[in-house]
Amino acid sequence: MTSSFEFAPLFPAGLPAPSARWTGLAQYSFVGGNNDAEQVPLDELIEATNTVLRREGRSLATYGLAHGPQGYLPLREFLATKLKRDAGITSTVDDLLIVSGSLQALDLVNATLLARGDTVIFEQESYQGSLTRLARLGVNVVGIPLDKDGMRMDLLASTLADLKGRGIRPKYIYTIPTVQNPTGSIMPESRRTELVRLATEYGVPIFEDDCYADLVWSGQRPPAIHAMSPNGGVIHIGSFSKSIAPALRVGFVVAPWEVMSRILALKTDAGSGALEQMVLAAYCRPHFASHVPTLTKALRTKLDTLMEALNEQFGTAAEFEEPKGGIFLWVKLPDQVDTLKLYQAALAAGVSINPGPEWSTNKDHSSSRLRLCFASPTHQQIRDGVAVLAEVCRKEFGVPARSANVEKRA
Amino acid sequence: MTSSFEFAPLFPAGLPAPSARWTGLAQYSFVGGNNDAEQVPLDELIEATNTVLRREGRSLATYGLAHGPQGYLPLREFLATKLKRDAGITSTVDDLLIVSGSLQALDLVNATLLARGDTVIFEQESYQGSLTRLARLGVNVVGIPLDKDGMRMDLLASTLADLKGRGIRPKYIYTIPTVQNPTGSIMPESRRTELVRLATEYGVPIFEDDCYADLVWSGQRPPAIHAMSPNGGVIHIGSFSKSIAPALRVGFVVAPWEVMSRILALKTDAGSGALEQMVLAAYCRPHFASHVPTLTKALRTKLDTLMEALNEQFGTAAEFEEPKGGIFLWVKLPDQVDTLKLYQAALAAGVSINPGPEWSTNKDHSSSRLRLCFASPTHQQIRDGVAVLAEVCRKEFGVPARSANVEKRA
Repeated sequence: MTSSFEFAPLFPAGLPAPSARWTGLAQYSFVGGNNDAEQVPLDELIEATNTVLRREGRSLATYGLAHGPQGYLPLREFLATKLKRDAGITSTVDDLLIVSGSLQALDLVNATLLARGDTVIFEQESYQGSLTRLARLGVNVVGIPLDKDGMRMDLLASTLADLKGRGIRPKYIYTIPTVQNPTGSIMPESRRTELVRLATEYGVPIFEDDCYADLVWSGQRPPAIHAMSPNGGVIHIGSFSKSIAPALRVGFVVAPWEVMSRILALKTDAGSGALEQMVLAAYCRPHFASHVPTLTKALRTKLDTLMEALNEQFGTAAEFEEPKGGIFLWVKLPDQVDTLKLYQAALAAGVSINPGPEWSTNKDHSSSRLRLCFASPTHQQIRDGVAVLAEVCRKEFGVPARSANVEKRA
Repeated sequence: MTSSFEFAPLFPAGLPAPSARWTGLAQYSFVGGNNDAEQVPLDELIEATNTVLRREGRSLATYGLAHGPQGYLPLREFLATKLKRDAGITSTVDDLLIVSGSLQALDLVNATLLARGDTVIFEQESYQGSLTRLARLGVNVVGIPLDKDGMRMDLLASTLADLKGRGIRPKYIYTIPTVQNPTGSIMPESRRTELVRLATEYGVPIFEDDCYADLVWSGQRPPAIHAMSPNGGVIHIGSFSKSIAPALRVGFVVAPWEVMSRILALKTDAGSGALEQMVLAAYCRPHFASHVPTLTKALRTKLDTLMEALNEQFGTAAEFEEPKGGIFLWVKLPDQVDTLKLYQAALAAGVSINPGPEWSTNKDHSSSRLRLCFASPTHQQIRDGVAVLAEVCRKEFGVPARSANVEKRA
């Protein structure tokens, strides 16, 4: 559809650049939080759908199924039970809001707390979607370096002290403590205690994004930071995207009423999709606890395939910490590799990757790093895609050397 | 969940007032775009769900089912066919974006075109959700009075000339031309032609909200304004909320690529709910065309019940034009009735109504008017609810007189 009417003069200042036309997924796609298609619990989802629609499908005639603006009650009931069992969070259905994926949770929490010019604290490497949102909002992001246990508390302490000295009270400390994105670390309980102590001392809320927290190889996770805070200064969000299926846009927020009542005033979408909430509630109550270990086992084998392929194709040129769960691997290539350039060249060869600078507040630190998502491609696609990526990398940057894998094995 | 942490000092200026806790629907609820629960095509929806999930349910593992940011392709294909057949709109799947209800469409179009201080043109009586959005955005709304055929073109012409004289180019003319909300009128084709002519002359886009357009008693509707514009300066939105079920959050936008590419850049929610899109596509292709007449027939009988009840209970004190379709009736009570006060008193008595001033840019004109939605309550609830409303109105305002119905029948 073309138009001779010119809309451009009407666009306000500050719009993001127009989107390009969609051209499909790459042949070897290592981007996006997509999941393993084989692990969608299809039979049980269909059974759950039939059961719940037969029982209460007519309630679809009423906005929000007449369960109010916080979402379908049985799903909130399931979540309250699950959050207690898995994360130690004590909540009631009144503390929970169902949203259209954790991205809507990010938008709502940001709209509730942030104004242009505000400052927030992030993990230095973090979720691109969160970083781009803050850039659009004109909010300053201060990144705290990570180690294998997540955000470094010594550097958080000095940053908070420095900001306070300059009269700046950050609006929140955003953390993905349980399977950190993109590094895959899990913050130990002792560090969580220290984080809560610092946040309390400086009067800064913690914004805990736990959207990968179900996908831990060991099945064991520390309590949520929300569960450890004595003063309630934590907003906790999560999602079913990673544990069930990302195309179902269902996430949630746990927040005290002071915040919840503000979020609800900003959630003017007449409720999130009710069918998806109904199906999830009907599925999760009997099946969630047994589904997750099956899923993580399958994901873990794909991670093994990816790490093997990287070792074979890149040898010592690819360095990484083995993640403790999740769907992505954070990889360091030799310093001369600019992953923004690698991204372009690899895409032309049919391989999509996430270049490090898009997932970091420190462009120097991340310039030769990249994120590889491994849940969606098949084992064969992982092997083939990594081989293509290595070939592109060699051609563009001279690494890995042809003999890298031989060296590695020597 | 209470918190000793004080979030309030962190809230930015300009937040809307906090929401009150939800206390459930009124006993007699005449508000909200809820539909007739008996008309949800449950068996066919369940059948469609089973079919589509068995066939392609594993694609839920990929964001947007790998159909790109504009939504599930079979649903866009259905819409392109339907819009041609019903509304005369020529479009392809590339011109269509699936959104999470037409409320998201409103937000996206507003974000694409509006800045604080801008001016837009509205029908004087219009959808509350659109009006409140613009108030929050700091946009000036100029209302054009309506008659039984919708927006008056003589007054639109003089308003456009006046604004031009003051150097103001409105960002759009927002209209609900096909079953106007709240008046229920349908703008005739000749008036649409005049609207397109004026919009073209003044270089103002038309924002056509057709979300009730399927619900026309006669089954016949004029072509969409979008279909009549020679220059493409029309953004068209619609929804499945009114034709199928509002708890399914699925709407759509038809726009030229110049606008679509900007909207896509602003739609950062990783896609609208895919299960709901899949189910709608599988249901609608075989069933939509036969479902709609069944639904409108049922709605029409509820309208008859409502008009009868009003005549019986209010007599000549309640004036209304019979709407040509839809789910609401716009009612004028005697001048001394302040419907904002009536709203409060009625709610206390178990009856919820939409007070006129919330649905109008002209508070004087609308102060004694109200909107009554009739799709959701049963016939008995309509009769009983109107009786309670009349009793409350009599007690608060002295009208209708006890003998109103007798007078009416004399």
